[in-house]
Amino acid sequence: MINDKPIAVFDSGVGGLTVLKSLKDRLPKQNFIYLGDSARLPYGSKTPQTIRKYAVQCLSFLSQFEPQAYIVACNSASTQIAESEWLGKPLLTVIEPVVKVASQVTKTHHIGVIGTRATINSKLFSKLLKVLNPDEHVFEQSCPLFVPLAEEGWVDDPITNLIAYRYISPMMQNPIDTLILGCTHYPLLKSSIQKASGAGVNLIEAGPTLANEIEHLILNQKIDPTQDGSLRIFLSDRTSQSDFWTKSLMGLDLDFEIESADL
Amino acid sequence: MINDKPIAVFDSGVGGLTVLKSLKDRLPKQNFIYLGDSARLPYGSKTPQTIRKYAVQCLSFLSQFEPQAYIVACNSASTQIAESEWLGKPLLTVIEPVVKVASQVTKTHHIGVIGTRATINSKLFSKLLKVLNPDEHVFEQSCPLFVPLAEEGWVDDPITNLIAYRYISPMMQNPIDTLILGCTHYPLLKSSIQKASGAGVNLIEAGPTLANEIEHLILNQKIDPTQDGSLRIFLSDRTSQSDFWTKSLMGLDLDFEIESADL
Repeated sequence: MINDKPIAVFDSGVGGLTVLKSLKDRLPKQNFIYLGDSARLPYGSKTPQTIRKYAVQCLSFLSQFEPQAYIVACNSASTQIAESEWLGKPLLTVIEPVVKVASQVTKTHHIGVIGTRATINSKLFSKLLKVLNPDEHVFEQSCPLFVPLAEEGWVDDPITNLIAYRYISPMMQNPIDTLILGCTHYPLLKSSIQKASGAGVNLIEAGPTLANEIEHLILNQKIDPTQDGSLRIFLSDRTSQSDFWTKSLMGLDLDFEIESADL
Repeated sequence: MINDKPIAVFDSGVGGLTVLKSLKDRLPKQNFIYLGDSARLPYGSKTPQTIRKYAVQCLSFLSQFEPQAYIVACNSASTQIAESEWLGKPLLTVIEPVVKVASQVTKTHHIGVIGTRATINSKLFSKLLKVLNPDEHVFEQSCPLFVPLAEEGWVDDPITNLIAYRYISPMMQNPIDTLILGCTHYPLLKSSIQKASGAGVNLIEAGPTLANEIEHLILNQKIDPTQDGSLRIFLSDRTSQSDFWTKSLMGLDLDFEIESADL
């Protein structure tokens, strides 16, 4: 019997679609289900308790589809999810896999982390990087304007370059060779971030890292490969803006409807 | 018997404190109660249905204090509240009073309106201005980066000036002499907005306008003057950021505690 159960992905909004897109590109035949909690975005400015409450509601919503695995594609939510399983199925966040890769690629052992206020205040990236290597030097910076800039579509824009420079250049006074994009919106601003950090710095993002992890779980038979390539996308609040972003981030060649989720 | 019932004010977050501050400065002995729905901010990117649902929850929360009047100090919420009374008490939004003033002061009859996406998409300012004067020319522009810029504290900052210029200068090609700040956060960026609009343009903001309205209701004995000068401020999610903004917007000389509201 073929298992057609999907892999479930959620985020506070449409930023997690950068992760879903990486997964879908790498595993086009796999079935996916996505939930964007756009009614209550952003999570990044909220308290740990509120973020945890909303994240658990998202996982409960997704569990009705009996997924084979859960992916928390939101860094702010990932800081509040310590579980590695949900209802007996693997649960991956966008933090641990990214930390592992950053720790492997750095040569200077000076690592930068950028994210929302909630993610940076949690200091979780620093803690986990130091668990892998107690001598790691970690520099964290919150960049609260990056999400609204990405949502405004001011990508590779002189104003975005200036803002990226203001946030990132102070930490670059240190010999950082690896910069973690600790928010799933940030890959949309990669070009401005790379300009501010300098061309030689490795930017580590969640999408390709999570795609590696899922491939690994399939190889180890922890997840069954599926064949339908089905895709369902739910949003808890649909605006013309969120629909526009969903379609443009996923690509116009993909076939899916946007559905409403009442959380 | 002296009526000590407060005037109730709510916003999606701390922006409405610019209105509360104007009211408190003008009427220091009046009792006020404020609710900031910071757990679910911003309202400005959400759908009308969701904004209405949250606004009604805020009004219900405030009704337990039996206020003499309600003020919706959030433009996005004001677009979804057609009522002029709530539980038999006067309800004021930040739209109608501001529209009335703008209509009185314009000489060129070209009026600009800036606000969040939800406020501008509602086209409510245009509609109401044209009810007062069908020949009014109205130019509306959403400025989604202004709220995060204000919350980042980048006030009178070169980057904020650039962004204000990008949003506002296209509409200023028209002979606009009056610009409505259609979001209660925007008075914090007044200096950048005035630079972008030009020094001769009247900026109309909600705080002083609402203070006039409340004085008028007291004079007409629709609201009783109170004597305690008590102030209670509730937030639905408290972060160090929201506490900081509450204290700095209200001024350190005022005596109040920040309390939590479970919405």
